[in-house]
Amino acid sequence: MNSADKKIFIAVVGESQTSSVIAKLAEEVGREIGKAGAVLVCGGLKGVMEYACKGAKSVDGTTIGVLPGSKREEANPWIDYPIVTGIGYARNKLVVKTGHVVIAVGGSYGTLSEIAFALGYKIPVVGLKTWQFIHHSGQLDKEVHYVSTPKEAVEIAIKLAHETRQLELTREYQT
Amino acid sequence: MNSADKKIFIAVVGESQTSSVIAKLAEEVGREIGKAGAVLVCGGLKGVMEYACKGAKSVDGTTIGVLPGSKREEANPWIDYPIVTGIGYARNKLVVKTGHVVIAVGGSYGTLSEIAFALGYKIPVVGLKTWQFIHHSGQLDKEVHYVSTPKEAVEIAIKLAHETRQLELTREYQT
Amino acid sequence: MNSADKKIFIAVVGESQTSSVIAKLAEEVGREIGKAGAVLVCGGLKGVMEYACKGAKSVDGTTIGVLPGSKREEANPWIDYPIVTGIGYARNKLVVKTGHVVIAVGGSYGTLSEIAFALGYKIPVVGLKTWQFIHHSGQLDKEVHYVSTPKEAVEIAIKLAHETRQLELTREYQT
Amino acid sequence: MNSADKKIFIAVVGESQTSSVIAKLAEEVGREIGKAGAVLVCGGLKGVMEYACKGAKSVDGTTIGVLPGSKREEANPWIDYPIVTGIGYARNKLVVKTGHVVIAVGGSYGTLSEIAFALGYKIPVVGLKTWQFIHHSGQLDKEVHYVSTPKEAVEIAIKLAHETRQLELTREYQT
Repeated sequence: MNSADKKIFIAVVGESQTSSVIAKLAEEVGREIGKAGAVLVCGGLKGVMEYACKGAKSVDGTTIGVLPGSKREEANPWIDYPIVTGIGYARNKLVVKTGHVVIAVGGSYGTLSEIAFALGYKIPVVGLKTWQFIHHSGQLDKEVHYVSTPKEAVEIAIKLAHETRQLELTREYQT
Repeated sequence: MNSADKKIFIAVVGESQTSSVIAKLAEEVGREIGKAGAVLVCGGLKGVMEYACKGAKSVDGTTIGVLPGSKREEANPWIDYPIVTGIGYARNKLVVKTGHVVIAVGGSYGTLSEIAFALGYKIPVVGLKTWQFIHHSGQLDKEVHYVSTPKEAVEIAIKLAHETRQLELTREYQT
Repeated sequence: MNSADKKIFIAVVGESQTSSVIAKLAEEVGREIGKAGAVLVCGGLKGVMEYACKGAKSVDGTTIGVLPGSKREEANPWIDYPIVTGIGYARNKLVVKTGHVVIAVGGSYGTLSEIAFALGYKIPVVGLKTWQFIHHSGQLDKEVHYVSTPKEAVEIAIKLAHETRQLELTREYQT
Repeated sequence: MNSADKKIFIAVVGESQTSSVIAKLAEEVGREIGKAGAVLVCGGLKGVMEYACKGAKSVDGTTIGVLPGSKREEANPWIDYPIVTGIGYARNKLVVKTGHVVIAVGGSYGTLSEIAFALGYKIPVVGLKTWQFIHHSGQLDKEVHYVSTPKEAVEIAIKLAHETRQLELTREYQT
């Protein structure tokens, strides 16, 4: 059995410049992820990323930061494993794909871009105070699981992550 | 003066599996781009990308296809310059950034992702039968220039591209 | 038939800070590529890249520059089609893969990295005053086609490119 | 202080199809890395990557695998933290940059490419039964620290990593 198989990876995406309301939500999302024993993956910088990591570390969780730049020390102080990419914002896709599920908190255009990218890859998305979007047919898109509290966000995320993981585990390890 | 300075680059993004209505719009967008003497940049594959390129080539325009995979021959038949990336859908960002402006036609989640990414980079976006989105404050986002015909899309795109180009040209060439 | 099928793409790689001897060779390589009617692909910046493009444009050739940064205006003045990637030096792989063949002129570590990457992808490499390398078995590697003049470099490159292209064309266009 | 600051990250690069001699060396390199309490970063797949991870996990070390593809389950069974990139072999640069130092074991062209890339970035490289290379001036390159045993490789790597880390820590955390 793969050493990573036991683990659930949850990607947290959100704005890097954030209000205190959103910051508080992000920190609580991180804490719930840590308490659940899941690994938190994010972009490694400030705002929602930093607050979520701070929350996770407050309960001794594990955090991975996939950095856009070439400097490890740009990681926020709560990152355990900084991945130094040097590929700029193309790294957003790596954050999303490394998660079994994505939790989006608040939102800049970058967050909207990551939500859409995740849905395109059929990675489930949980939304907390984030974007909604309307297809050109006029219909409101229904793919994101919108929630109103951090606790609810992580509960649903864990459930969805188990489904993703199950799908992955049924695919065979190729030796 | 830079050899590229005379040129306007317009990125066209849209779904790879497309209805005949959207296909017709994309082809006309491409034709208008070609007639305007601008260079069409796209993801190089099918659907909106292919129809737009077909339109551009019908009036002897120039087309660049930034391919996700490692095979040049996956480019649609109307691509003059296939760029072989092998970086998968992370190549979407290259399509967007290579344009002075983006025209989004129709739309899958990939298209939404590219629109949001462009706006995050302050690259202007013209939308034709594509996504709208609502900020978590409840307000409809107003950054995309929505239009209803291909002709109008390209007219506005050219105007916006000139503004982007002007901003770029005032930055100095560093020897 | 694909619009790109008629064209031969030659990637030119080499150091960005270069001696006058290497610069002269690069310029002549570019001129020969232009005279042969092939498209020159490079990293878009200075040194070997700039001199090669200058040579190509002196005979009205076509040049593509795959830029590492996010600013189009960082392209050297002889680039017709700047591709704006924003993915840093990971863009080197795109330069190499976009060529049917690679010509390496002079060489920094970046050049060595691109030669090795090309060989790993079975893209043929022509070397002009560039690196040689010794396998841990003690044997000198024989894959690079070392030449001593720009004219010879381009003649062999064109021949090798036709072989690559032939292999590609026999793979079918998937509609 | 950054949560990652205590940690040393060592990138291990090497061929994915490997002889039993090289495999044994790789496994021992991994074990020494684990015993030293450093984090092992690699490309996450087979051959040198898998054997090194196996060695690290045999002494309860920590392993990160930066995968080229889009499937987490392609990671070898000894990876704790699979990073899912989907950017193909452009991910090699991420492996190298995430290390404070690189250990190259054996070697395909991919390994040569990663060694050269690391040197271009001024990331120190330790070589164990790997490539040597000759500058076009005729001089053998002297940048790689060649060693003959896994124990020696990791000892020197740890020493070099401390130097890299010191340089990084003197750069300030930007709030």
